[in-house]
Amino acid sequence: MTADFATRVRAAVGRRGRLCVGIDPHAQLLTAWGLPDDATGLRTFTETVVGAIGPHVAVAKPQVAFYERHGSAGVAVLEDALAALRDAGVLVIADAKRGDIGSTMAAYADTWLGDTSPLRADALTASPYLGFGSLDPAVGLADATGRGVVVLARTSNPEGGGLQTAVDADGRSVAQSIVDAAALHNGSGRASVGLVVGATREHGLDLTGVGGPILAPGLGAQGATPADLARVFAGATDLLLPSASRQVLSAGPDGSAVAAVAQRLRDEVEAALR
Amino acid sequence: MTADFATRVRAAVGRRGRLCVGIDPHAQLLTAWGLPDDATGLRTFTETVVGAIGPHVAVAKPQVAFYERHGSAGVAVLEDALAALRDAGVLVIADAKRGDIGSTMAAYADTWLGDTSPLRADALTASPYLGFGSLDPAVGLADATGRGVVVLARTSNPEGGGLQTAVDADGRSVAQSIVDAAALHNGSGRASVGLVVGATREHGLDLTGVGGPILAPGLGAQGATPADLARVFAGATDLLLPSASRQVLSAGPDGSAVAAVAQRLRDEVEAALR
Repeated sequence: MTADFATRVRAAVGRRGRLCVGIDPHAQLLTAWGLPDDATGLRTFTETVVGAIGPHVAVAKPQVAFYERHGSAGVAVLEDALAALRDAGVLVIADAKRGDIGSTMAAYADTWLGDTSPLRADALTASPYLGFGSLDPAVGLADATGRGVVVLARTSNPEGGGLQTAVDADGRSVAQSIVDAAALHNGSGRASVGLVVGATREHGLDLTGVGGPILAPGLGAQGATPADLARVFAGATDLLLPSASRQVLSAGPDGSAVAAVAQRLRDEVEAALR
Repeated sequence: MTADFATRVRAAVGRRGRLCVGIDPHAQLLTAWGLPDDATGLRTFTETVVGAIGPHVAVAKPQVAFYERHGSAGVAVLEDALAALRDAGVLVIADAKRGDIGSTMAAYADTWLGDTSPLRADALTASPYLGFGSLDPAVGLADATGRGVVVLARTSNPEGGGLQTAVDADGRSVAQSIVDAAALHNGSGRASVGLVVGATREHGLDLTGVGGPILAPGLGAQGATPADLARVFAGATDLLLPSASRQVLSAGPDGSAVAAVAQRLRDEVEAALR
Protein backbone atom coordinates (compact mmCIF):
# COMPACT_ATOMS: atom_id res chain seq x y z
CA MET A 1 0.00 0.00 0.00
CA THR A 2 1.21 3.47 -0.87
CA ALA A 3 2.44 5.80 1.89
CA ASP A 4 -0.24 7.97 3.43
CA PHE A 5 -0.55 11.69 2.78
CA ALA A 6 1.18 12.84 5.96
CA THR A 7 4.11 10.54 5.23
CA ARG A 8 4.37 11.85 1.68
CA VAL A 9 4.30 15.46 2.89
CA ARG A 10 6.95 14.72 5.51
CA ALA A 11 9.26 13.27 2.86
CA ALA A 12 8.66 16.16 0.45
CA VAL A 13 9.27 18.95 2.98
CA GLY A 14 12.33 17.10 4.26
CA ARG A 15 13.81 17.52 0.80
CA ARG A 16 12.54 20.95 -0.20
CA GLY A 17 11.22 22.75 2.87
CA ARG A 18 7.73 23.59 4.03
CA LEU A 19 6.80 26.51 1.77
CA CYS A 20 3.62 26.04 -0.26
CA VAL A 21 3.31 28.38 -3.23
CA GLY A 22 -0.24 29.42 -4.05
CA ILE A 23 -0.95 29.76 -7.76
CA ASP A 24 -3.63 32.45 -7.95
CA PRO A 25 -3.94 33.84 -11.48
CA HIS A 26 -6.56 36.49 -10.85
CA ALA A 27 -7.43 39.07 -13.48
CA GLN A 28 -5.33 41.90 -12.06
CA LEU A 29 -2.28 39.65 -11.84
CA LEU A 30 -2.62 38.56 -15.47
CA THR A 31 -2.84 42.23 -16.41
CA ALA A 32 0.18 43.09 -14.26
CA TRP A 33 2.13 40.40 -16.13
CA GLY A 34 1.07 41.94 -19.46
CA LEU A 35 -1.16 38.98 -20.27
CA PRO A 36 -4.73 38.89 -21.57
CA ASP A 37 -7.44 37.89 -19.08
CA ASP A 38 -8.38 34.75 -21.01
CA ALA A 39 -7.37 31.09 -21.23
CA THR A 40 -4.31 31.97 -23.31
CA GLY A 41 -3.01 34.39 -20.71
CA LEU A 42 -3.88 31.88 -18.01
CA ARG A 43 -1.79 29.24 -19.76
CA THR A 44 1.26 31.46 -20.17
CA PHE A 45 1.07 32.58 -16.55
CA THR A 46 0.66 29.05 -15.24
CA GLU A 47 3.43 27.55 -17.35
CA THR A 48 5.80 30.29 -16.19
CA VAL A 49 4.98 29.75 -12.50
CA VAL A 50 5.13 25.97 -12.70
CA GLY A 51 8.46 26.12 -14.52
CA ALA A 52 9.82 28.58 -11.96
CA ILE A 53 8.80 26.83 -8.76
CA GLY A 54 8.86 23.20 -9.98
CA PRO A 55 12.49 22.51 -9.06
CA HIS A 56 12.43 24.38 -5.75
CA VAL A 57 9.34 23.88 -3.59
CA ALA A 58 7.70 20.86 -2.02
CA VAL A 59 4.08 21.91 -2.32
CA ALA A 60 1.99 24.04 -4.68
CA LYS A 61 -1.60 25.13 -4.25
CA PRO A 62 -3.40 26.14 -7.41
CA GLN A 63 -6.55 28.12 -6.65
CA VAL A 64 -9.18 26.35 -8.72
CA ALA A 65 -11.56 29.33 -8.91
CA PHE A 66 -9.15 31.21 -11.18
CA TYR A 67 -9.17 28.33 -13.68
CA GLU A 68 -12.91 27.64 -13.46
CA ARG A 69 -13.46 31.33 -14.20
CA HIS A 70 -12.32 30.68 -17.78
CA GLY A 71 -14.72 27.76 -18.21
CA SER A 72 -13.72 24.46 -19.77
CA ALA A 73 -10.74 26.09 -21.49
CA GLY A 74 -9.44 27.22 -18.11
CA VAL A 75 -9.99 23.79 -16.60
CA ALA A 76 -7.94 22.30 -19.44
CA VAL A 77 -5.07 24.63 -18.47
CA LEU A 78 -5.35 23.36 -14.91
CA GLU A 79 -5.22 19.72 -16.08
CA ASP A 80 -1.94 20.42 -17.86
CA ALA A 81 -0.57 22.30 -14.85
CA LEU A 82 -1.37 19.38 -12.55
CA ALA A 83 0.48 17.02 -14.89
CA ALA A 84 3.49 19.34 -15.08
CA LEU A 85 3.65 19.71 -11.29
CA ARG A 86 3.48 15.92 -10.89
CA ASP A 87 6.36 15.56 -13.35
CA ALA A 88 8.35 18.13 -11.37
CA GLY A 89 7.88 16.17 -8.14
CA VAL A 90 5.79 18.88 -6.50
CA LEU A 91 2.93 17.82 -4.23
CA VAL A 92 -0.25 19.62 -5.26
CA ILE A 93 -3.07 20.72 -3.00
CA ALA A 94 -6.00 21.64 -5.25
CA ASP A 95 -7.52 24.59 -3.43
CA ALA A 96 -11.15 24.07 -4.38
CA LYS A 97 -12.89 24.02 -0.99
CA ARG A 98 -15.36 21.44 -2.20
CA GLY A 99 -18.00 20.00 0.11
CA ASP A 100 -21.18 18.03 -0.43
CA ILE A 101 -22.80 14.77 0.65
CA GLY A 102 -23.12 11.20 -0.55
CA SER A 103 -22.68 10.47 -4.24
CA THR A 104 -21.95 14.13 -4.95
CA MET A 105 -19.07 14.21 -2.47
CA ALA A 106 -17.87 10.94 -3.97
CA ALA A 107 -17.83 12.62 -7.40
CA TYR A 108 -15.68 15.48 -6.07
CA ALA A 109 -13.40 12.86 -4.54
CA ASP A 110 -13.13 11.03 -7.89
CA THR A 111 -12.33 14.32 -9.59
CA TRP A 112 -9.49 15.46 -7.37
CA LEU A 113 -8.26 12.31 -5.62
CA GLY A 114 -8.91 9.49 -8.08
CA ASP A 115 -5.99 7.69 -9.71
CA THR A 116 -7.22 8.21 -13.28
CA SER A 117 -8.89 11.63 -13.21
CA PRO A 118 -7.45 14.35 -15.48
CA LEU A 119 -7.79 16.70 -12.49
CA ARG A 120 -6.10 14.47 -9.92
CA ALA A 121 -3.99 16.24 -7.34
CA ASP A 122 -2.27 15.05 -4.16
CA ALA A 123 -4.85 16.68 -1.92
CA LEU A 124 -8.06 18.68 -2.05
CA THR A 125 -9.17 21.44 0.30
CA ALA A 126 -12.67 20.77 1.63
CA SER A 127 -15.37 22.75 3.41
CA PRO A 128 -17.18 21.02 6.29
CA TYR A 129 -20.43 23.03 6.56
CA LEU A 130 -22.32 19.77 5.94
CA GLY A 131 -20.39 18.12 8.78
CA PHE A 132 -16.94 16.56 8.92
CA GLY A 133 -18.59 13.18 8.34
CA SER A 134 -20.04 14.37 5.03
CA LEU A 135 -16.46 14.36 3.71
CA ASP A 136 -16.10 10.62 4.33
CA PRO A 137 -16.22 9.65 0.63
CA ALA A 138 -13.21 11.89 0.03
CA VAL A 139 -11.36 10.78 3.15
CA GLY A 140 -11.94 7.15 2.21
CA LEU A 141 -10.60 7.62 -1.31
CA ALA A 142 -7.65 9.61 0.07
CA ASP A 143 -6.88 6.75 2.47
CA ALA A 144 -6.91 4.32 -0.44
CA THR A 145 -4.82 6.38 -2.87
CA GLY A 146 -2.29 8.00 -0.53
CA ARG A 147 -3.83 11.40 -1.09
CA GLY A 148 -5.15 14.01 1.35
CA VAL A 149 -8.24 15.99 2.31
CA VAL A 150 -7.34 19.35 3.83
CA VAL A 151 -10.35 20.57 5.77
CA LEU A 152 -11.17 24.18 6.63
CA ALA A 153 -10.94 24.64 10.40
CA ARG A 154 -10.13 28.23 11.47
CA THR A 155 -9.52 30.92 8.92
CA SER A 156 -8.07 34.40 9.32
CA ASN A 157 -10.78 36.36 7.48
CA PRO A 158 -12.86 38.48 9.88
CA GLU A 159 -16.21 37.12 8.60
CA GLY A 160 -15.29 33.56 9.57
CA GLY A 161 -15.23 33.97 13.33
CA GLY A 162 -18.93 33.87 14.13
CA LEU A 163 -19.46 30.42 12.67
CA GLN A 164 -16.08 28.89 13.44
CA THR A 165 -16.22 29.84 17.13
CA ALA A 166 -19.87 28.82 17.64
CA VAL A 167 -20.17 26.17 20.33
CA ASP A 168 -21.53 22.71 19.62
CA ALA A 169 -23.46 20.35 21.89
CA ASP A 170 -20.18 18.98 23.28
CA GLY A 171 -19.09 22.46 24.36
CA ARG A 172 -16.39 22.71 21.72
CA SER A 173 -16.02 25.36 19.07
CA VAL A 174 -16.93 24.33 15.53
CA ALA A 175 -13.27 24.79 14.52
CA GLN A 176 -11.98 22.64 17.40
CA SER A 177 -14.50 19.92 16.55
CA ILE A 178 -13.05 19.78 13.03
CA VAL A 179 -9.53 19.58 14.46
CA ASP A 180 -10.56 16.77 16.82
CA ALA A 181 -12.24 14.81 14.03
CA ALA A 182 -9.10 15.11 11.92
CA ALA A 183 -6.91 13.95 14.81
CA LEU A 184 -9.23 11.01 15.47
CA HIS A 185 -9.08 9.87 11.85
CA ASN A 186 -5.34 10.32 11.53
CA GLY A 187 -4.66 8.58 14.83
CA SER A 188 -6.76 5.54 14.09
CA GLY A 189 -5.49 4.68 10.66
CA ARG A 190 -4.15 6.47 7.63
CA ALA A 191 -3.08 10.10 8.20
CA SER A 192 -4.95 11.47 5.19
CA VAL A 193 -6.60 14.49 6.78
CA GLY A 194 -5.01 17.92 6.95
CA LEU A 195 -6.40 21.23 8.19
CA VAL A 196 -6.57 24.81 6.97
CA VAL A 197 -5.69 27.23 9.77
CA GLY A 198 -5.03 30.86 8.93
CA ALA A 199 -1.59 32.25 9.76
CA THR A 200 -2.48 35.88 10.32
CA ARG A 201 -4.28 35.70 13.67
CA GLU A 202 -4.32 33.59 16.82
CA HIS A 203 -6.30 30.46 16.06
CA GLY A 204 -7.20 29.49 19.61
CA LEU A 205 -7.04 25.78 18.77
CA ASP A 206 -5.44 22.80 20.43
CA LEU A 207 -3.50 21.34 17.50
CA THR A 208 -1.56 18.72 19.44
CA GLY A 209 -1.98 15.26 18.02
CA VAL A 210 -3.44 16.32 14.68
CA GLY A 211 -1.00 14.05 12.91
CA GLY A 212 -1.61 15.63 9.49
CA PRO A 213 -0.41 18.65 7.56
CA ILE A 214 -1.60 22.11 8.56
CA LEU A 215 -2.00 24.40 5.59
CA ALA A 216 -1.56 27.98 6.77
CA PRO A 217 -2.46 30.61 4.18
CA GLY A 218 -1.43 34.20 4.72
CA LEU A 219 2.35 34.20 4.54
CA GLY A 220 4.02 37.20 2.96
CA ALA A 221 1.97 39.95 1.34
CA GLN A 222 -1.14 38.71 3.16
CA GLY A 223 0.36 39.62 6.51
CA ALA A 224 2.18 36.80 8.33
CA THR A 225 5.96 36.69 8.64
CA PRO A 226 8.00 33.51 9.06
CA ALA A 227 8.54 34.56 12.70
CA ASP A 228 4.76 34.79 13.19
CA LEU A 229 4.46 31.17 12.05
CA ALA A 230 6.81 29.97 14.76
CA ARG A 231 4.72 31.76 17.38
CA VAL A 232 1.17 31.07 16.09
CA PHE A 233 1.89 27.40 15.42
CA ALA A 234 4.24 26.69 18.34
CA GLY A 235 4.32 22.93 18.90
CA ALA A 236 2.64 22.19 15.57
CA THR A 237 5.24 23.22 13.00
CA ASP A 238 6.28 19.71 12.07
CA LEU A 239 3.95 19.36 9.09
CA LEU A 240 3.10 23.06 8.79
CA LEU A 241 2.66 24.21 5.20
CA PRO A 242 2.70 28.01 5.16
CA SER A 243 1.30 29.26 1.91
CA ALA A 244 2.28 32.42 0.05
CA SER A 245 0.85 33.64 -3.24
CA ARG A 246 1.08 37.35 -3.89
CA GLN A 247 4.62 37.84 -2.64
CA VAL A 248 5.90 35.15 -4.99
CA LEU A 249 3.70 35.80 -8.01
CA SER A 250 4.14 39.55 -8.05
CA ALA A 251 7.83 38.98 -8.83
CA GLY A 252 6.81 37.96 -12.38
CA PRO A 253 6.45 37.93 -15.31
CA ASP A 254 10.11 36.96 -15.24
CA GLY A 255 10.21 33.29 -14.24
CA SER A 256 13.68 33.50 -12.76
CA ALA A 257 12.53 36.32 -10.47
CA VAL A 258 9.57 34.18 -9.34
CA ALA A 259 11.95 31.30 -8.66
CA ALA A 260 14.31 33.54 -6.69
CA VAL A 261 11.56 34.89 -4.42
CA ALA A 262 10.17 31.40 -3.84
CA GLN A 263 13.60 30.07 -2.88
CA ARG A 264 14.32 32.98 -0.56
CA LEU A 265 10.94 32.71 1.18
CA ARG A 266 11.30 28.92 1.45
CA ASP A 267 14.66 29.37 3.18
CA GLU A 268 13.30 32.10 5.50
CA VAL A 269 10.49 29.77 6.57
CA GLU A 270 12.91 26.95 7.30
CA ALA A 271 15.18 29.27 9.28
CA ALA A 272 12.27 30.56 11.37
CA LEU A 273 10.86 27.08 12.07
CA ARG A 274 14.16 25.35 12.71
CA MET B 1 -32.13 47.59 -13.81
CA THR B 2 -33.04 43.95 -14.26
CA ALA B 3 -35.49 42.27 -11.88
CA ASP B 4 -33.91 40.69 -8.84
CA PHE B 5 -33.56 36.95 -8.38
CA ALA B 6 -36.58 36.50 -6.13
CA THR B 7 -38.74 38.39 -8.61
CA ARG B 8 -37.48 36.25 -11.48
CA VAL B 9 -38.15 33.04 -9.54
CA ARG B 10 -41.64 34.24 -8.63
CA ALA B 11 -42.44 34.88 -12.29
CA ALA B 12 -41.01 31.54 -13.41
CA VAL B 13 -42.83 29.40 -10.83
CA GLY B 14 -46.03 31.33 -11.53
CA ARG B 15 -45.85 30.02 -15.08
CA ARG B 16 -44.46 26.53 -14.56
CA GLY B 17 -44.74 25.59 -10.89
CA ARG B 18 -42.19 25.25 -8.13
CA LEU B 19 -40.52 21.93 -8.96
CA CYS B 20 -36.76 22.09 -9.41
CA VAL B 21 -35.29 19.12 -11.27
CA GLY B 22 -31.83 18.11 -10.14
CA ILE B 23 -29.56 16.94 -12.95
CA ASP B 24 -27.23 14.43 -11.27
CA PRO B 25 -25.45 12.26 -13.84
CA HIS B 26 -23.55 9.98 -11.50
CA ALA B 27 -21.75 6.91 -12.76
CA GLN B 28 -24.43 4.41 -11.79
CA LEU B 29 -27.11 6.44 -13.50
CA LEU B 30 -25.13 6.65 -16.73
CA THR B 31 -24.73 2.89 -16.56
CA ALA B 32 -28.44 2.39 -15.86
CA TRP B 33 -29.18 4.44 -18.97
CA GLY B 34 -26.85 2.21 -21.01
CA LEU B 35 -24.32 5.01 -21.44
CA PRO B 36 -20.54 5.00 -20.97
CA ASP B 37 -19.17 6.71 -17.86
CA ASP B 38 -17.30 9.35 -19.86
CA ALA B 39 -17.89 12.79 -21.38
CA THR B 40 -19.75 11.26 -24.34
CA GLY B 41 -22.21 9.47 -22.09
CA LEU B 42 -22.50 12.59 -19.97
CA ARG B 43 -23.42 14.62 -23.05
CA THR B 44 -26.10 12.19 -24.23
CA PHE B 45 -27.60 11.97 -20.74
CA THR B 46 -27.61 15.74 -20.28
CA GLU B 47 -29.07 16.53 -23.68
CA THR B 48 -31.85 14.02 -23.09
CA VAL B 49 -32.73 15.45 -19.69
CA VAL B 50 -32.57 19.07 -20.83
CA GLY B 51 -34.75 18.31 -23.84
CA ALA B 52 -37.24 16.45 -21.65
CA ILE B 53 -37.65 18.99 -18.86
CA GLY B 54 -36.95 22.20 -20.80
CA PRO B 55 -40.56 22.88 -21.80
CA HIS B 56 -42.09 21.88 -18.48
CA VAL B 57 -40.27 23.05 -15.36
CA ALA B 58 -39.33 26.46 -13.99
CA VAL B 59 -36.01 25.57 -12.39
CA ALA B 60 -33.23 23.05 -12.98
CA LYS B 61 -30.27 22.31 -10.75
CA PRO B 62 -27.30 20.66 -12.43
CA GLN B 63 -24.95 19.11 -9.90
CA VAL B 64 -21.57 20.48 -10.94
CA ALA B 65 -19.53 17.68 -9.32
CA PHE B 66 -20.79 15.18 -11.89
CA TYR B 67 -19.49 17.36 -14.73
CA GLU B 68 -16.21 18.30 -13.04
CA ARG B 69 -15.59 14.59 -12.55
CA HIS B 70 -14.98 14.29 -16.30
CA GLY B 71 -12.48 17.15 -16.30
CA SER B 72 -12.49 19.93 -18.89
CA ALA B 73 -14.48 17.75 -21.31
CA GLY B 74 -17.21 17.40 -18.69
CA VAL B 75 -17.19 21.12 -17.97
CA ALA B 76 -17.67 21.76 -21.69
CA VAL B 77 -20.80 19.57 -21.58
CA LEU B 78 -22.07 21.68 -18.68
CA GLU B 79 -21.45 24.91 -20.63
CA ASP B 80 -23.63 23.62 -23.46
CA ALA B 81 -26.30 22.44 -21.02
CA LEU B 82 -26.45 25.86 -19.37
CA ALA B 83 -26.92 27.49 -22.79
CA ALA B 84 -29.66 25.02 -23.74
CA LEU B 85 -31.51 25.57 -20.45
CA ARG B 86 -31.31 29.34 -20.94
CA ASP B 87 -32.76 28.94 -24.44
CA ALA B 88 -35.58 26.81 -23.00
CA GLY B 89 -36.50 29.51 -20.48
CA VAL B 90 -35.51 27.39 -17.48
CA LEU B 91 -33.90 29.14 -14.51
CA VAL B 92 -30.71 27.32 -13.54
CA ILE B 93 -29.25 26.97 -10.07
CA ALA B 94 -25.69 25.70 -10.48
CA ASP B 95 -25.30 23.36 -7.52
CA ALA B 96 -21.61 23.84 -6.86
CA LYS B 97 -21.57 24.81 -3.16
CA ARG B 98 -18.67 27.17 -3.72
CA GLY B 99 -17.27 29.26 -0.91
CA ASP B 100 -14.06 31.23 -0.43
CA ILE B 101 -12.90 34.74 0.45
CA GLY B 102 -11.89 37.93 -1.31
CA SER B 103 -10.59 37.72 -4.86
CA THR B 104 -11.15 33.96 -4.93
CA MET B 105 -14.82 34.31 -4.04
CA ALA B 106 -15.03 37.04 -6.66
CA ALA B 107 -13.65 34.60 -9.23
CA TYR B 108 -16.32 32.02 -8.36
CA ALA B 109 -18.89 34.80 -8.68
CA ASP B 110 -17.55 35.76 -12.12
CA THR B 111 -17.68 32.11 -13.16
CA TRP B 112 -21.28 31.38 -12.24
CA LEU B 113 -22.97 34.79 -12.04
CA GLY B 114 -21.13 36.98 -14.54
CA ASP B 115 -22.90 38.14 -17.70
CA THR B 116 -20.25 36.85 -20.10
CA SER B 117 -18.98 33.65 -18.46
CA PRO B 118 -19.41 30.39 -20.42
CA LEU B 119 -20.58 28.85 -17.11
CA ARG B 120 -23.11 31.53 -16.19
CA ALA B 121 -26.25 30.32 -14.49
CA ASP B 122 -29.13 32.13 -12.79
CA ALA B 123 -27.91 31.24 -9.33
CA LEU B 124 -25.11 29.45 -7.51
CA THR B 125 -25.32 27.42 -4.34
CA ALA B 126 -22.74 28.58 -1.79
CA SER B 127 -21.23 27.24 1.43
CA PRO B 128 -20.80 29.70 4.31
CA TYR B 129 -18.13 28.01 6.47
CA LEU B 130 -15.97 31.12 5.99
CA GLY B 131 -18.87 33.30 7.18
CA PHE B 132 -21.93 34.64 5.39
CA GLY B 133 -20.01 37.89 4.82
CA SER B 134 -17.30 36.02 2.89
CA LEU B 135 -19.91 35.49 0.17
CA ASP B 136 -20.30 39.26 -0.37
CA PRO B 137 -18.48 39.31 -3.72
CA ALA B 138 -21.04 36.81 -5.05
CA VAL B 139 -24.01 38.54 -3.45
CA GLY B 140 -22.87 41.88 -4.87
CA LEU B 141 -22.53 40.50 -8.40
CA ALA B 142 -25.89 38.73 -8.05
CA ASP B 143 -27.47 42.04 -7.00
CA ALA B 144 -26.01 43.68 -10.08
CA THR B 145 -26.92 40.99 -12.61
CA GLY B 146 -30.32 39.84 -11.34
CA ARG B 147 -28.89 36.51 -10.32
CA GLY B 148 -28.94 34.62 -7.00
CA VAL B 149 -26.73 33.12 -4.32
CA VAL B 150 -28.42 30.17 -2.61
CA VAL B 151 -26.65 29.62 0.70
CA LEU B 152 -26.51 26.38 2.68
CA ALA B 153 -28.41 26.83 5.93
CA ARG B 154 -29.82 23.57 7.35
CA THR B 155 -29.39 20.30 5.53
CA SER B 156 -31.05 16.94 6.07
CA ASN B 157 -27.93 14.76 6.18
CA PRO B 158 -27.26 13.39 9.66
CA GLU B 159 -23.62 14.60 9.74
CA GLY B 160 -24.68 18.23 9.31
CA GLY B 161 -26.43 18.74 12.63
CA GLY B 162 -23.47 19.24 14.94
CA LEU B 163 -22.14 22.26 13.09
CA GLN B 164 -25.42 23.73 11.88
CA THR B 165 -26.98 23.70 15.35
CA ALA B 166 -23.90 25.02 17.17
CA VAL B 167 -24.68 28.26 18.99
CA ASP B 168 -22.94 31.52 18.14
CA ALA B 169 -22.10 34.46 20.40
CA ASP B 170 -25.57 35.93 19.81
CA GLY B 171 -27.22 32.76 21.10
CA ARG B 172 -28.45 31.73 17.67
CA SER B 173 -27.77 28.50 15.85
CA VAL B 174 -25.33 28.70 12.96
CA ALA B 175 -28.17 27.81 10.58
CA GLN B 176 -30.48 30.51 11.95
CA SER B 177 -27.69 33.08 11.70
CA ILE B 178 -27.42 32.29 7.98
CA VAL B 179 -31.20 32.62 7.61
CA ASP B 180 -31.16 35.97 9.42
CA ALA B 181 -28.29 37.30 7.29
CA ALA B 182 -30.19 36.32 4.15
CA ALA B 183 -33.36 38.02 5.39
CA LEU B 184 -31.41 41.15 6.27
CA HIS B 185 -29.86 41.37 2.82
CA ASN B 186 -33.09 40.66 0.98
CA GLY B 187 -35.07 43.08 3.09
CA SER B 188 -32.69 45.97 2.69
CA GLY B 189 -32.20 45.92 -1.05
CA ARG B 190 -32.19 43.37 -3.83
CA ALA B 191 -33.62 39.95 -2.95
CA SER B 192 -30.68 38.01 -4.39
CA VAL B 193 -30.10 35.55 -1.56
CA GLY B 194 -31.79 32.17 -1.29
CA LEU B 195 -31.30 29.35 1.19
CA VAL B 196 -30.81 25.60 1.08
CA VAL B 197 -32.97 23.87 3.68
CA GLY B 198 -33.39 20.11 3.54
CA ALA B 199 -36.91 18.78 3.04
CA THR B 200 -36.60 15.44 4.80
CA ARG B 201 -36.44 16.52 8.44
CA GLU B 202 -37.69 19.32 10.67
CA HIS B 203 -35.40 22.28 10.15
CA GLY B 204 -36.12 24.15 13.39
CA LEU B 205 -35.68 27.52 11.69
CA ASP B 206 -37.68 30.72 11.70
CA LEU B 207 -38.02 31.31 7.96
CA THR B 208 -40.47 34.20 8.13
CA GLY B 209 -39.28 37.23 6.26
CA VAL B 210 -36.53 35.50 4.30
CA GLY B 211 -37.78 37.13 1.12
CA GLY B 212 -35.82 34.81 -1.16
CA PRO B 213 -36.20 31.34 -2.65
CA ILE B 214 -35.80 28.30 -0.42
CA LEU B 215 -34.25 25.39 -2.25
CA ALA B 216 -35.39 22.17 -0.57
CA PRO B 217 -33.56 19.06 -1.77
CA GLY B 218 -34.93 15.66 -0.90
CA LEU B 219 -38.23 15.40 -2.75
CA GLY B 220 -39.19 12.02 -4.13
CA ALA B 221 -36.78 9.10 -3.96
CA GLN B 222 -34.75 10.90 -1.29
CA GLY B 223 -37.65 10.75 1.15
CA ALA B 224 -39.91 13.80 1.22
CA THR B 225 -43.43 13.78 -0.20
CA PRO B 226 -45.26 16.84 -1.52
CA ALA B 227 -47.41 16.66 1.62
CA ASP B 228 -44.26 16.77 3.79
CA LEU B 229 -43.28 20.02 2.08
CA ALA B 230 -46.53 21.70 3.08
CA ARG B 231 -45.92 20.73 6.70
CA VAL B 232 -42.15 21.28 7.00
CA PHE B 233 -42.28 24.63 5.21
CA ALA B 234 -45.62 25.89 6.51
CA GLY B 235 -45.71 29.67 6.06
CA ALA B 236 -42.69 29.66 3.76
CA THR B 237 -43.95 27.91 0.63
CA ASP B 238 -44.26 31.03 -1.47
CA LEU B 239 -40.82 30.78 -3.09
CA LEU B 240 -40.16 27.18 -2.09
CA LEU B 241 -38.23 25.22 -4.71
CA PRO B 242 -38.47 21.52 -3.85
CA SER B 243 -35.84 19.61 -5.73
CA ALA B 244 -36.07 16.05 -7.02
CA SER B 245 -33.40 14.17 -8.92
CA ARG B 246 -33.51 10.40 -8.68
CA GLN B 247 -37.27 10.02 -9.07
CA VAL B 248 -37.22 11.98 -12.31
CA LEU B 249 -33.94 10.77 -13.79
CA SER B 250 -34.53 7.08 -13.10
CA ALA B 251 -37.45 7.25 -15.55
CA GLY B 252 -34.90 7.43 -18.40
CA PRO B 253 -33.27 6.79 -20.78
CA ASP B 254 -36.53 7.54 -22.60
CA GLY B 255 -36.85 11.33 -22.65
CA SER B 256 -40.62 11.28 -22.88
CA ALA B 257 -40.76 9.15 -19.71
CA VAL B 258 -38.51 11.67 -17.93
CA ALA B 259 -40.77 14.49 -19.09
CA ALA B 260 -43.88 12.66 -17.91
CA VAL B 261 -42.52 12.05 -14.40
CA ALA B 262 -41.34 15.65 -14.13
CA GLN B 263 -44.75 16.98 -15.16
CA ARG B 264 -46.58 14.68 -12.76
CA LEU B 265 -44.33 15.55 -9.82
CA ARG B 266 -44.55 19.25 -10.66
CA ASP B 267 -48.34 19.05 -10.55
CA GLU B 268 -48.32 17.04 -7.30
CA VAL B 269 -46.15 19.71 -5.68
CA GLU B 270 -48.48 22.49 -6.81
CA ALA B 271 -51.52 20.59 -5.55
CA ALA B 272 -49.93 20.00 -2.14
CA LEU B 273 -48.79 23.62 -1.73
CA ARG B 274 -51.92 25.27 -3.05
